[in-house]
Amino acid sequence: MNNAPIGVFDSGVGGLTVVKEILDQLPQEKIIYFGDTARVPYGNKSADTVTRYSGQIIRFLLSKGAKTIVIACNTASAVALEEVKKEFDVPMLGVVKPGAKAAAEATKNGKIGVIATEATIRSEIYSKFLKKTDPQVTVYAKACPLFVPLVEEGWTNNDPITEQVVARYLSELCEKDIDALVLGCTHYPLLREMIQRAVGERVTLVNPAVETARELKYLLEENHLMSTQTVSGGRESDAPVQHEFYVSDGAEKFLQFAASILPEAVLRPENIRVETFE
Amino acid sequence: MNNAPIGVFDSGVGGLTVVKEILDQLPQEKIIYFGDTARVPYGNKSADTVTRYSGQIIRFLLSKGAKTIVIACNTASAVALEEVKKEFDVPMLGVVKPGAKAAAEATKNGKIGVIATEATIRSEIYSKFLKKTDPQVTVYAKACPLFVPLVEEGWTNNDPITEQVVARYLSELCEKDIDALVLGCTHYPLLREMIQRAVGERVTLVNPAVETARELKYLLEENHLMSTQTVSGGRESDAPVQHEFYVSDGAEKFLQFAASILPEAVLRPENIRVETFE
Repeated sequence: MNNAPIGVFDSGVGGLTVVKEILDQLPQEKIIYFGDTARVPYGNKSADTVTRYSGQIIRFLLSKGAKTIVIACNTASAVALEEVKKEFDVPMLGVVKPGAKAAAEATKNGKIGVIATEATIRSEIYSKFLKKTDPQVTVYAKACPLFVPLVEEGWTNNDPITEQVVARYLSELCEKDIDALVLGCTHYPLLREMIQRAVGERVTLVNPAVETARELKYLLEENHLMSTQTVSGGRESDAPVQHEFYVSDGAEKFLQFAASILPEAVLRPENIRVETFE
Repeated sequence: MNNAPIGVFDSGVGGLTVVKEILDQLPQEKIIYFGDTARVPYGNKSADTVTRYSGQIIRFLLSKGAKTIVIACNTASAVALEEVKKEFDVPMLGVVKPGAKAAAEATKNGKIGVIATEATIRSEIYSKFLKKTDPQVTVYAKACPLFVPLVEEGWTNNDPITEQVVARYLSELCEKDIDALVLGCTHYPLLREMIQRAVGERVTLVNPAVETARELKYLLEENHLMSTQTVSGGRESDAPVQHEFYVSDGAEKFLQFAASILPEAVLRPENIRVETFE
């Protein structure tokens, strides 16, 4: 079981930023990734639908022998994790709890901003986790539904239109004297520079992916599930780790995006009809 | 069979603009509408996936007794109509052919612009239909993937950011001396004013929904499928027409949008797991 793969999924390609952190911190682990590119995005859909889709994907990942599941999507972590935990008997981890933990550590004045999709903000889950960690903190949340389409259109590098959208969405938060801001959607780190400029250097930007990889390590240790394979220098190995990638639509487009995020060669992803995993 | 309903579908709510035209022109007909709000948008997905989803929806609409099918989504009309026509033995109509016909009638100098989703533009279907009508026309096409999210965010009424996005997408077309522009996505008529300003008053904006309702009338007549019910004044009736609305996610959100488009009261839509109609 130890050398079984870690199943990671997201509504699309954004979860690869989480995969990157896992590969950096746990280079001996094998990853099976699923991106639900046919039904992306999740952020403007209901909790019921996102939970049903998450269940189908987890069933698929378990059919591939996953020893643990990482929900690399903030929306699915926010609205589906508690439900699917009840259904599946396998260690599971989302990105929200680690993200909240990192934010609670980053703040000094106890004023924390959260930006995410509509569904994540509506769930108020970051607020719940942050308040549980420290009842004194104040959380200011803002949904930014245009960030994902702007990133997917490639209008990222200091594009003047994107800059205005960032400024409009973040203006409320800027008035609240926050000193930490959670990037609560896997696409948002790709707008990092513009977000930092809009909120000012004083505000620490928190990327939940980093802390998620760290929590994953604890989870594997706790469950005695760490891989026993060895890799030299994290890149070469006697038996190189062959990660697997699956999507529900458009393998070609996925491949281009993957190449821009992951340092290692990504094998051609396979198309899966995930809705049949009921 | 004549008094059976007309099945209309779209990837989401935009197709209601087509329903509105049908109700105006054919008030005696009953509509069964399906919006695939769980899997919206279609415009950035592959032809295979959109075709599979369209097949499931048509199977659902036929299970409800539809006498004919209107594909009110440009993307599905562009990439799936020819395929599904082979599979189902029922009269079908998309919005692309009527849209192309209206554009060919509107142009005087033979230079026509088309704006639509990535998938519709990639299919080159408007160009094919326009060239078939008149081999002399020149077609300039441009995908505008941010228009749908901007409309869904509600940044429509002369919003300065949307104004800049419109100007950026349309600047190429403006240089081409076009005199007709097809609004090749059901959301785009909601940006009509800004689009008109960007291209100038000289350019006729073509909304395929209007011509689609007209073509539907011919299709029903041709197949002897016109409803024999009578309505007085299009609003009142001895037996009022009860339209039916179905969605795959988020009935509440759908209802709000429907109220802004349709003059008549829309009954609470029902949630359907359309992926089971394989």
